[in-house]
Amino acid sequence: MPQVGIYHDLIQPDVRLMLAEGDQAGLREFCEALYPVVVAEILDGMPPEEAWAVIHACEISRQAEIFEFIEPHQQLELVQAVDRKHLSQLIEVMSSDDRVDLLEHMDEEQVEQLLPLVAQAEREDIRRLLSYDDDTCGSIMTTEYARLPEHLTIREGLERLRQQAPDRETIYYIFICDEDRHLHGVITLRQLILSRPTTPLDAVMRRDVVSVRVDEPTENAARELARFDLLALPVVDDQHRLVGIITHDDVLDLVQESAEEDAYRQSAMEPLENSYFSTPLLTIAHKRGVWLLALSVMSLVTAAVARAFEAVGDRHGWMECFYPLVLASGGNTGSQSATLIIRAMGLSTLTKKEQQQAMWRELYTGMILGSVLGLFIFIAVQPLFGHSALEASVVGMTIAVVVTMGAVTGSCLPMLFDRLGMDPAVMSNPLIASLSDMFATAIYFTVAIVLLERFFF
Amino acid sequence: MPQVGIYHDLIQPDVRLMLAEGDQAGLREFCEALYPVVVAEILDGMPPEEAWAVIHACEISRQAEIFEFIEPHQQLELVQAVDRKHLSQLIEVMSSDDRVDLLEHMDEEQVEQLLPLVAQAEREDIRRLLSYDDDTCGSIMTTEYARLPEHLTIREGLERLRQQAPDRETIYYIFICDEDRHLHGVITLRQLILSRPTTPLDAVMRRDVVSVRVDEPTENAARELARFDLLALPVVDDQHRLVGIITHDDVLDLVQESAEEDAYRQSAMEPLENSYFSTPLLTIAHKRGVWLLALSVMSLVTAAVARAFEAVGDRHGWMECFYPLVLASGGNTGSQSATLIIRAMGLSTLTKKEQQQAMWRELYTGMILGSVLGLFIFIAVQPLFGHSALEASVVGMTIAVVVTMGAVTGSCLPMLFDRLGMDPAVMSNPLIASLSDMFATAIYFTVAIVLLERFFF
Repeated sequence: MPQVGIYHDLIQPDVRLMLAEGDQAGLREFCEALYPVVVAEILDGMPPEEAWAVIHACEISRQAEIFEFIEPHQQLELVQAVDRKHLSQLIEVMSSDDRVDLLEHMDEEQVEQLLPLVAQAEREDIRRLLSYDDDTCGSIMTTEYARLPEHLTIREGLERLRQQAPDRETIYYIFICDEDRHLHGVITLRQLILSRPTTPLDAVMRRDVVSVRVDEPTENAARELARFDLLALPVVDDQHRLVGIITHDDVLDLVQESAEEDAYRQSAMEPLENSYFSTPLLTIAHKRGVWLLALSVMSLVTAAVARAFEAVGDRHGWMECFYPLVLASGGNTGSQSATLIIRAMGLSTLTKKEQQQAMWRELYTGMILGSVLGLFIFIAVQPLFGHSALEASVVGMTIAVVVTMGAVTGSCLPMLFDRLGMDPAVMSNPLIASLSDMFATAIYFTVAIVLLERFFF
Repeated sequence: MPQVGIYHDLIQPDVRLMLAEGDQAGLREFCEALYPVVVAEILDGMPPEEAWAVIHACEISRQAEIFEFIEPHQQLELVQAVDRKHLSQLIEVMSSDDRVDLLEHMDEEQVEQLLPLVAQAEREDIRRLLSYDDDTCGSIMTTEYARLPEHLTIREGLERLRQQAPDRETIYYIFICDEDRHLHGVITLRQLILSRPTTPLDAVMRRDVVSVRVDEPTENAARELARFDLLALPVVDDQHRLVGIITHDDVLDLVQESAEEDAYRQSAMEPLENSYFSTPLLTIAHKRGVWLLALSVMSLVTAAVARAFEAVGDRHGWMECFYPLVLASGGNTGSQSATLIIRAMGLSTLTKKEQQQAMWRELYTGMILGSVLGLFIFIAVQPLFGHSALEASVVGMTIAVVVTMGAVTGSCLPMLFDRLGMDPAVMSNPLIASLSDMFATAIYFTVAIVLLERFFF
C-alpha cells in the first residue's frame, strides 16, 4: 500500500475540482468507493466547509463511517461548521464508542444543546457511556454487541444474529445472556457455522468467559485481550451483567497511544494530543517548558550541593573536566534501572518479594557495572589526560559509587511511587537523572576530600 | 480476571499433587478445561520433565495449543527434554507462524536433525517461511488462511469454508483467488452470512484489498492493519499472489514488543528477550554495560573540551556549581526534540519539506524555551546564590543558547540518521544528551570568556 501522504497529495486536487464543478455524482463515488479511512485522510487539512460539501454527497451512514476516522481536532472544526440538526443525525448513526469520544471533546454547553435533538434510545446510551470515568473500560467500550439467549439452537441463533448484524460492531463473538443480561457464555461465529444446526447454543458455548469490569482501568482490558488473543472482550457490571464490549482495534489504538505517551513521559514532556505538525508551537513549548522548569529547579538544588563543596573544587580545578562524565554515568545507569523496573511492573504488579529481589538485583548489577566502568576510567584517564594514579582513582572510585547509586535510585523510586499509589512512569528518565545529579555531586567531592586531602593530612 | 501471578501460585501445587499421584484424568482435565494460555502460565517455571508429564496427558493438538503460549526460553528447555519423534509430531500440528518462531530460536543443527521427521507438506511450509528475512512480513505471517475461488455462490462458498475451517487461523476474512493464487478480492464471514445464498461471491467481495508485500518491513503490516481496523492482512508476493496472512493478535504482539524495545533503546540499553526476572544478571549487565561504556567514551571527549577551558574554570570557580544545570538543560531539551521527531517519523516518513519545517519549528521552540528558562535562571540565581548580575547573566545566557542548541541537535540527528538509511531510534536520549554535553561545555565557558573577561578588557 502506498504511504498515507501520497494518497492525500494525489487525490485532494481531484476532489477540489469536483467540488468546484459541483460534480455530486463524482463526490458520491469518491466517498463510497474508497475505504472510509482513506476518504478521511484525503479530507485532512481541508477547510470545514469544503470537507462537509464533500461528505454531504453520500448518505448519512457513510458520512458517519468517514467521520469516525477523522482526527479529533478536525472533527471539532467540522462540528462548529454544521447545523445542529445534521450533527444530531450523524451522531445517531455513529458507533456508540466513537460518538462518545467526540462528545467528550466538545464543550459541555454545546453537548447539552445537541442531545435533546438525538433520538431517545441513542441519547440514553450516550448519557450512560459519558458517565464512566476516563481510563476505565466503560469509557472505551461500545454497546453494539451481538447477544443471544441460551435456550436457542444453532440454527435459531444464526437467524436471530442475521437480524442483529447490521448495527453490531462485531458478530464474530456472540455473547449468551439471560433476560437480565447476566453473561453466561460466549460462542464464536466460527463455532456457529461449524456446529450441527439442531445443537443447542449452550452445548457449544464456552462458559468461563474472559471479561473485565466496567470500572477497571483500560490497561486491564488491553492486557487480557492480548493475553487470550481475543477479537473482543465483554465488559460486565458488578452483578456480572453484560454492558458492552471492547474490540481488538480499540485495544490496538490504546496500546499505540500508551506507547506514545510513555515515550513522551520518558523524555519529560506532556504527551501531544494531535500530530506533531498539527500541534501549535506554543502548545508544544508549554508541554515541554513546564517540565524543563521543574527540572531546572532541581538543578538549582544540585547547584547548592556543589556550592557547599566549592572550596574543594577550587583546590582541584582539574576535577571540573570529569564532572560531566560523573553526572552522565549516574543519570544513564539510573535511567536504565528505572526503565527495567517500570517495564517489569507494566506486565504485572510486583509482589513484595519481587520488589526486594529487584532491589538486590539492581544493587548487584550496579556494583558490577560500576566496577567495570570505574576501572576503565581509572586506567584511561592516566595516559589520556596525564593525571596521577591518585587523581585518576578519585574519578574511577566516584564512577563506581555513582553507578551503583544510580542503579539503586533508579529502581527504588518507581517502586516507591507505585507503593504510594502513584503512577511509577512519572519517574521519567530526566527526573531520575536530576536526582542522581545531586547524589553524584556529593559523592564526587566527598571522594576527592577522602582520597586527596585526608590522605595527605 | 485475576492477575497472572495469582493463578500460577494457586494452581501449580494442585498440578504437582496430580503429578505425584499419577492422576492422568485430572491432568487431562486441567489441560483441556482451562484456556491454553492459562495452562502455559501455570507451567511457567516447572522443570521440563514435569511440564511434559503434565501436557502429555492431553492429545497432541491441545499440546500444541498450550505449547504456543509458553515463553520462548522455556520452549527451548522443553525441546531439549523430549524425544525428536514427539517433537516432530508437535511441530506438525502447531500453527505455521508459531512453529517457525520456535525453529528460529533453536540451534540450526538441531533443526536439521528434526526436519526430516516432519511430514513433507509441513516441512516445505517451514522451509519457505524460514527463508524470509527477520522483520519482514514474511517472517511473521501464517500460511493457514481461508481461500475460495471467485466463481462460487455464497452457499457453495460457505460449504467449502466449513471443510477448510478446522485448520485455518481465521475464517472471518476469506480471500478470493484464482488457480494461481493471484489475490482478486476479500469477503468477510459477516458478508457471507448476510448475503443471499445464490449470489455469486464476486458480486459481494471487495476488490481493492489492502495488502502488504512479503518483503516489506513488519511495521508496514502493523500500520496498515491498524489504519484500516482489520482482523487480518493478506501478504502477497511480487506477482500479487497470496502467500500468507498476518492476524490482529500478531500485530498487537508486534506493537507491544516494539514499544518495549523503544523504551529500552531510549534508555540506552539493548532490549531484553525474556522477562526481567528470568534474564540472568550478567546478561542484563552486558546489555547495559556496552552502552554505558560507549557513553563514557563520549564523556571523555567532553572532558577534553572542558580541559581546554580549564583556565577559565579556575578563574571563576563558582561556575562549577551551575555546570550540572547547564548540562541538564541541553540534554533534556535535546531528548524532548529527539522524541518528538522520532515519533513524528514513526507515523510516516517525513518529506523534505516536513524535515525543514521540523527544523525551523525546533529552532523556534528552542529559542522560546531557552529565553524563558534563561530569564528564570538569571533572576533566580542572584538572590538565591548572591551572584552579581553579570555572573547571573553568564548562566542565564548560557542556558538560553544551550537549550536552543539542544532542540536543534535533538531534532537534526534523528533526521540525519534517517537520511543515511539508519534507524533514527538509535539516537537514544542518552546519546543525544552526551553530544549535547560537549556543545554545552564549549558554550558555557565561551559565554563566560565573552561576558566576564572581554567585558573588562
